Amino acid sequence: MKKVHEINEEKFKINSLNKYASLMALGNGYMGTRSALEEDYPQQVRGMYVSGIYNKAYPEDSSDIVNLPDVFGVDMIIDGEPFSLLSGEILSYNRTLHMQTGEMTREVKWKNRRGKSFLFKFQRFVSKANLHLLASKITVTPLADSADIQIETGINGQQTNFGKQHLVEENVRVYDEKVMFATYRTSESGHKIAIAACCDFPESFTTVFLSKNRKLTAKSQGVLYANESAIIEKTGSVYTSLDKESAGQKIENLAVKLAKEAAGRGYHDLLASSGDQWEDFWKKKRVEVNSLNHFDQTALDFALYHMEIMTPGHDERFSVGAKGLTGEGYKGHVFWDTEIFIKPFHLLTEPEKAKKLLQYRYDRIEQAKEKARMNGYDGALFPWESAFSGKEETPEFAAINIRTGLRQRVASAAAEHHIVADIAFAVVHYYLATGDEAFMRKEGLALLRETSLFWISRTTEENGRLSIKDVIGPDEYTEHIDNNAYTNYLAYFNVQQAIYYMEQFQMLEPAFEEKVKKFLKHLYLPLPNDDKIIPQDDTFLHKPDIDLSKYKEVQGSQAILLDYSRSEVNELQVLKQADVVMLFYLLPDLFSEEVIRENLHYYEERTIHDSSLSKAIHSIVAARIGILKDAYRFFSEACLIDLGSNPHSSDEGIHAASLGSLWMSAIFGFANVKIDQDGLAIDPKLPKEWKELSFPLAFRGRILRVKMTQGNIEINKLSGQPMPILVRGQKYKLSSELAINY
Amino acid sequence: MKKVHEINEEKFKINSLNKYASLMALGNGYMGTRSALEEDYPQQVRGMYVSGIYNKAYPEDSSDIVNLPDVFGVDMIIDGEPFSLLSGEILSYNRTLHMQTGEMTREVKWKNRRGKSFLFKFQRFVSKANLHLLASKITVTPLADSADIQIETGINGQQTNFGKQHLVEENVRVYDEKVMFATYRTSESGHKIAIAACCDFPESFTTVFLSKNRKLTAKSQGVLYANESAIIEKTGSVYTSLDKESAGQKIENLAVKLAKEAAGRGYHDLLASSGDQWEDFWKKKRVEVNSLNHFDQTALDFALYHMEIMTPGHDERFSVGAKGLTGEGYKGHVFWDTEIFIKPFHLLTEPEKAKKLLQYRYDRIEQAKEKARMNGYDGALFPWESAFSGKEETPEFAAINIRTGLRQRVASAAAEHHIVADIAFAVVHYYLATGDEAFMRKEGLALLRETSLFWISRTTEENGRLSIKDVIGPDEYTEHIDNNAYTNYLAYFNVQQAIYYMEQFQMLEPAFEEKVKKFLKHLYLPLPNDDKIIPQDDTFLHKPDIDLSKYKEVQGSQAILLDYSRSEVNELQVLKQADVVMLFYLLPDLFSEEVIRENLHYYEERTIHDSSLSKAIHSIVAARIGILKDAYRFFSEACLIDLGSNPHSSDEGIHAASLGSLWMSAIFGFANVKIDQDGLAIDPKLPKEWKELSFPLAFRGRILRVKMTQGNIEINKLSGQPMPILVRGQKYKLSSELAINY
Repeated sequence: MKKVHEINEEKFKINSLNKYASLMALGNGYMGTRSALEEDYPQQVRGMYVSGIYNKAYPEDSSDIVNLPDVFGVDMIIDGEPFSLLSGEILSYNRTLHMQTGEMTREVKWKNRRGKSFLFKFQRFVSKANLHLLASKITVTPLADSADIQIETGINGQQTNFGKQHLVEENVRVYDEKVMFATYRTSESGHKIAIAACCDFPESFTTVFLSKNRKLTAKSQGVLYANESAIIEKTGSVYTSLDKESAGQKIENLAVKLAKEAAGRGYHDLLASSGDQWEDFWKKKRVEVNSLNHFDQTALDFALYHMEIMTPGHDERFSVGAKGLTGEGYKGHVFWDTEIFIKPFHLLTEPEKAKKLLQYRYDRIEQAKEKARMNGYDGALFPWESAFSGKEETPEFAAINIRTGLRQRVASAAAEHHIVADIAFAVVHYYLATGDEAFMRKEGLALLRETSLFWISRTTEENGRLSIKDVIGPDEYTEHIDNNAYTNYLAYFNVQQAIYYMEQFQMLEPAFEEKVKKFLKHLYLPLPNDDKIIPQDDTFLHKPDIDLSKYKEVQGSQAILLDYSRSEVNELQVLKQADVVMLFYLLPDLFSEEVIRENLHYYEERTIHDSSLSKAIHSIVAARIGILKDAYRFFSEACLIDLGSNPHSSDEGIHAASLGSLWMSAIFGFANVKIDQDGLAIDPKLPKEWKELSFPLAFRGRILRVKMTQGNIEINKLSGQPMPILVRGQKYKLSSELAINY
Repeated sequence: MKKVHEINEEKFKINSLNKYASLMALGNGYMGTRSALEEDYPQQVRGMYVSGIYNKAYPEDSSDIVNLPDVFGVDMIIDGEPFSLLSGEILSYNRTLHMQTGEMTREVKWKNRRGKSFLFKFQRFVSKANLHLLASKITVTPLADSADIQIETGINGQQTNFGKQHLVEENVRVYDEKVMFATYRTSESGHKIAIAACCDFPESFTTVFLSKNRKLTAKSQGVLYANESAIIEKTGSVYTSLDKESAGQKIENLAVKLAKEAAGRGYHDLLASSGDQWEDFWKKKRVEVNSLNHFDQTALDFALYHMEIMTPGHDERFSVGAKGLTGEGYKGHVFWDTEIFIKPFHLLTEPEKAKKLLQYRYDRIEQAKEKARMNGYDGALFPWESAFSGKEETPEFAAINIRTGLRQRVASAAAEHHIVADIAFAVVHYYLATGDEAFMRKEGLALLRETSLFWISRTTEENGRLSIKDVIGPDEYTEHIDNNAYTNYLAYFNVQQAIYYMEQFQMLEPAFEEKVKKFLKHLYLPLPNDDKIIPQDDTFLHKPDIDLSKYKEVQGSQAILLDYSRSEVNELQVLKQADVVMLFYLLPDLFSEEVIRENLHYYEERTIHDSSLSKAIHSIVAARIGILKDAYRFFSEACLIDLGSNPHSSDEGIHAASLGSLWMSAIFGFANVKIDQDGLAIDPKLPKEWKELSFPLAFRGRILRVKMTQGNIEINKLSGQPMPILVRGQKYKLSSELAINY
């Protein structure tokens, strides 16, 4: 395996600090930390988050993923002046996220305002070997003169979620004049957090401990001669009362013990253990591409790195937020992004993790039923935004309406109901890829049944036809419309699959069957019109077009909402993201290639791609019908959603679904892997830029490794029973390996 | 009157940003704002506070003065880079607090990293003409090249008290595409806050409004040609549900109306109205000194400026926090500082304000009685720290104990009981200076009676002698001691004055009289020992001495607590501040000059002056007994508590009591004004550096103006009836003016 790529920042840029803090975030699925620089800068947002630790700052608010006290921040005072790259002169700068090992490093040569030069090396990681551990190391060397160095670091409980404080400081102390320790309690959800941190300062330094205003700090001061290095190692530990494996133990003791023991082992030893885990990860899951564009591999490595650190594979009680654990965008809430964009990677590399993500929904089915009941429906209506409780967490308000000056209400909770079918889709997909009958029998069928009951109750009968009215499809720029094509087809699929599997598992009740059959018979499924265009909803095609080029240029920024209010946008043929195209992606066999091509063209022209969920889906749909040039362009553009030059695109966290969709582009688009009742099919559609693509696949108990070039495909089965496989439309039996030239 | 001095900052220093934010704070007694720079810097603390708006962030915490959403902060992006004085080059810099008019201005000539130069002028004030109004003006001029300027400012609700958020955001909107508006609710105390802000940007600029993450912002962008100025004026208004004068009106409407109307008037007109009020203030209250050291006048002007902006003269329901409204030190709590250090200035310049400060205590007498009851005492035990509720607000913990690593408990709430007598002292002083019989009859006697009952119950009888055990005197480095001289003498004074005035007002009850007489007869009052030293408490003089020079050098920083734990300091003859000396200040006639001199010498040697309440008291006591060289030195050092070179001395706010004591040094020390049963006495003790001192005095319905030089004193009565006066020990009758040479 070639070396995993790095993410580099070669110049200090104040404007992109928050972008790189997200991009270079560290984590392990249990916790995530933004890679804010050690020293503070205005508007730089630090953040540490633990999966599942949400809180409401006040009763009428929705839950936030809690920004926990900070451990990586360091104030350095050099000859009496705070170290800041805004002052003095930067002689050299490089920051690197070593995705191979999960470490972030920064090397800076800097001249202060008095003309003294220093070399700084900053290193840090969040351990993949111990979910509760993080560590950092700082090496400071004055290059030509002696200097007075003062370092302050500890546990900083002044962190907030953009001004909202979720934590009550409960206990603060120092053990053995060494281990700083603090406990906190989330103010509403009542989780307990224990954090310990242990610093090793140079022996010649003098250290005191200070506790004030929610900050517990070790302040260490000393003089360094020219070329003498000060090395500061810090270990930190985080435990919470939600931790499963700590049940019955005092998390306070665990935190102190771990920080102390880790300090005894030292930074490099700890990093090595964590790096071993990362090596294993890449070995098992990496997608390798030999592309004319070196950056394609970087983007795929980046996607997989983040898929790994965002997913709480250790605990089925949590799921993945729209920004992973890299920022506070969308408050850490869980959307359909998880089922449709993030789960597939896990499903086909480590299905146990995919199962946990579905388990997360299953465990909240009662809350979903309650939401349905409250809204006058049957079955389960899953919340548009979900956190820990399983209740609807969508915030009440979005941005200011430019016409009225009032904040605009967010309609998604009330109308973006397709999430129900998305979850059902993910259940079916999970079963098809794993054949996990135990899951299907219990959790899977329960989910399919309750989601079906919801859809059945969600319809309105008019002249014998069933409509689904007043919804929002994936395209959120078109609200409160009737018979959204995506929603109706997915709802149909949902109900159809429910009855199919209930029959299969001999769990079909006659009363249910009757309702279902009526639904399937009468549900209105919009068909292509004379121009072959599937109407996105009942009224969409009657609305006027406008010139979108201005907004497409700054796509992702929702700039159109600065010129038009939401309700004005609603009356235009303007899409935020794939909608009918999304339908083609999920249910590719419903429509002819011609219909897909015409609709792709029609809708893409009208799509701003303001959602990061859009581009890669277009890529996949285009690839499958062989429009490879467009497919590759869409893919390349999708890679830039986080990694592009916009300095603010990822300020509030990476785009988790977008990263999942990059993997999907490679596997479901260019490799054109398809999983259905008939099993596994592969029908490569490699763009000309890609010389080779290889990746692992977990499928129904087997581990496969697939490698394809232009005109050749090799499939190795690394474990599991022989299986049939469809390659380029032809049936093969895969015993141990298969090589096909074409 | 000569021009009121200015406070200048002639160089941008990142280390002293928070000091100057406090020193140059603006306010009007209703609200106070820290003068943080418009642009953000790491660790720069912004703050806006309204008198009486306290909140508990969580039930077990004590109340904080709430840091309200910010209006003065501005993000400026110039040619795509944030404006920051840390980057680029500062060609010239001057920041000035114009105490004459209450305006702060900053002029900066700055070259950005690309070599373009700009001139910035920042102006702002908090109105003294309308308590709810603040305004700012920014003028930006590119000096040689055109530049793209982006300005973001609005209402920033991300402000916290060092990470604690007290406000629930309730409503956010923009009126008429112009007036930004937000309302908040304090989470526990339930006060409502309405803030409006209105910006005038250059006409050529494009402006949009954004609302996200508790920030409501106007973002305005345009291009400026060389030498073309962009002028941005902003008006802001603040109302709260506590406002008396807004009762019955919707504070939302008031806020929007004021911000809009003010914008119509414009910055300069608004400033002129406010400046008129300041002119009136200085005319009526200024202390003028002709000193060899120009700085003495600066310090006195500074003291008076802050006394004025810290005092909620508009409403008797609030009092003065230990840092005024300039920062969050001591959480905005009210201590004995108010009665003993701040009230005197008001008492002798505008007695109505002094009365309100006493009314604040009287209105909370039931809570003080409750605290006494809870602790097993009679009468009223006022809280050591008070906020709005009148309940004890002292925080539970202070800094980390360097030995145990545990936070140390704050003992003041449990033992620093002298505040009871301090309040009683202030009542008597108020009556002596005003002759306000109505107040004495009702509020005054109630306070004297309940405080007396407390002291009577606070004693322990041993062998016929009454002790007051387990207290903390003003010297907080000596805790849990018995018979603190200050406390015992003040308690005696308290009870003695109570019975005296109850008799005077024919309100003495026999049962009370009997208790009182026993108390006065048997209370132990420590007398000078053979060395003429009054023991500070029963054990103090038996404790060892240590060399304090190291700590005296950095006085004010409590550096001794980094070498000794509190309990270790407790076993040493180390004083934080004046204790026996404080007693001499308040009750000057009890002891002979010789005793005062010996004790001053003995205790000062052992006093670190880590409290800002110490130095000026030493000055006054020294001046009165004619040790003028020391007195002037103490005074000069006291002037440096805020205005000295320590860059961090005032980070969390100015030292309100210290500023009050500067005025006291001039009036009660160098002018040696004395007010007692016999009336007003003046016996100048001008240090040789002072050629002339003049000041107003309000005394029992008269307004006097006193002017003294070395060897001459002139007293003019500007209003009121003729009165007797004692000058240098001799009785005079003051009809309209009096001139005495000596």
